[in-house]
Amino acid sequence: MRNLKITLAYDGTRFVGWQRQVEGESIQGLLEEALAKFEGGPVTVHGAGRTDAGVHALGQVASANVTFEHPTDTLVRALNAQLPADVRVKDVAEAPSDFHARFSARSKTYRYQMRSGTVADPFTRAYVWHVGERLDIDTMRSAAASLLGTHDFGAFQCAGTPTSSSVRTITRSEILEERDVIAYEVTGDGFLRHMVRSIVGTLVEIGRGWRPAESMAQLTAGGTRAQAGATAPPHGLFLVRVDYH
Amino acid sequence: MRNLKITLAYDGTRFVGWQRQVEGESIQGLLEEALAKFEGGPVTVHGAGRTDAGVHALGQVASANVTFEHPTDTLVRALNAQLPADVRVKDVAEAPSDFHARFSARSKTYRYQMRSGTVADPFTRAYVWHVGERLDIDTMRSAAASLLGTHDFGAFQCAGTPTSSSVRTITRSEILEERDVIAYEVTGDGFLRHMVRSIVGTLVEIGRGWRPAESMAQLTAGGTRAQAGATAPPHGLFLVRVDYH
Repeated sequence: MRNLKITLAYDGTRFVGWQRQVEGESIQGLLEEALAKFEGGPVTVHGAGRTDAGVHALGQVASANVTFEHPTDTLVRALNAQLPADVRVKDVAEAPSDFHARFSARSKTYRYQMRSGTVADPFTRAYVWHVGERLDIDTMRSAAASLLGTHDFGAFQCAGTPTSSSVRTITRSEILEERDVIAYEVTGDGFLRHMVRSIVGTLVEIGRGWRPAESMAQLTAGGTRAQAGATAPPHGLFLVRVDYH
Repeated sequence: MRNLKITLAYDGTRFVGWQRQVEGESIQGLLEEALAKFEGGPVTVHGAGRTDAGVHALGQVASANVTFEHPTDTLVRALNAQLPADVRVKDVAEAPSDFHARFSARSKTYRYQMRSGTVADPFTRAYVWHVGERLDIDTMRSAAASLLGTHDFGAFQCAGTPTSSSVRTITRSEILEERDVIAYEVTGDGFLRHMVRSIVGTLVEIGRGWRPAESMAQLTAGGTRAQAGATAPPHGLFLVRVDYH
């Protein structure tokens, strides 16, 4: 039995998300189908992050147990020949038998792209949240920095999601300005469902002057979901990379 | 009667091109419909460049005679409210009565984006031509430079297009390397139908080593369409800007 580590990028626009669903096309489903052609039977893949519908990935990682012998170096091209153009396998590597894309992950990095300005950009409309108003970047920066460290992120969790603990450790939380795009980049040991998008929604409310920068720290000190900002739309979010021990 | 100068950007992916056609959606058609709502009757717009199906624009310019009195500063937002997200009006200005987007143009600048590499990028697949092989940039650069000046570009013209003259003057013809994108940028006083895409197709054949860099200069010295390279696909091409006297 081989254990494969597969790194992939995808444009999540038209998908129901990473995870297989009863209806609609998922990235997991497409990758499993592509691998099944080489395996001659069903293959199950595990993804590091279960990106939601409309969320993109620059470096999602999946693991899969297979028995076929196709070498990894030509498997990239062979799998891409089976996949649609909005899903691309970037790398395939042999992994130790105990490697699991999700449970072996040490940290994940997400990026959220937004832009202010009166006229939206037609070329990045599927990848950047167009926020009409001008945003106060300095205030957003200080609010973003207050998330660093170990906190309870329950206030940024999708309502009704059962998890054993909502405590997570954030090692990077930064606002970047790149030409006309404002990006939020965050690295942590794990993320709750909708956590990055709820943080971004709150950051934008701070940037708009609707709430003070200090309200961010209050949310990680016993705040509730209702006190946090709205969930930002999915299309600005990218799973950038997953790091392993 | 007012004469408006309208600058717009669009993602050409799903359109039949700039120009109105019997079937399918065109950018000209959409802009005319949007203006007709303010005019309360039909409006004809003239575009600086008739971009083909699948070709994009960062700064297309259109002119239109109208009688309505809506001020230009709020017209940008009002027109965008009528247009789909893949077409955005960037600016509206009052123009002299003799201004014509096409005939008053002094020069136009086009940009063509391509990339080599084994794995295509899912996010720019509609905006960058994915050329598998590695390209020899230095050779392409010298071939591009040989187009500068006034030449007969008949060899780069779409077969069967009747034009009074195929002589054009090129004032900039450059290959740029930007991270993993190779861009060709060209400015000239006018362009024949398919001219930029035929130049790019020839440049790529030079970059692949299929023909020498000197063959470019031979094509502008009496070459025929059959001697030039294949026409590059439309999706890598952008009309960047139009300059006026």
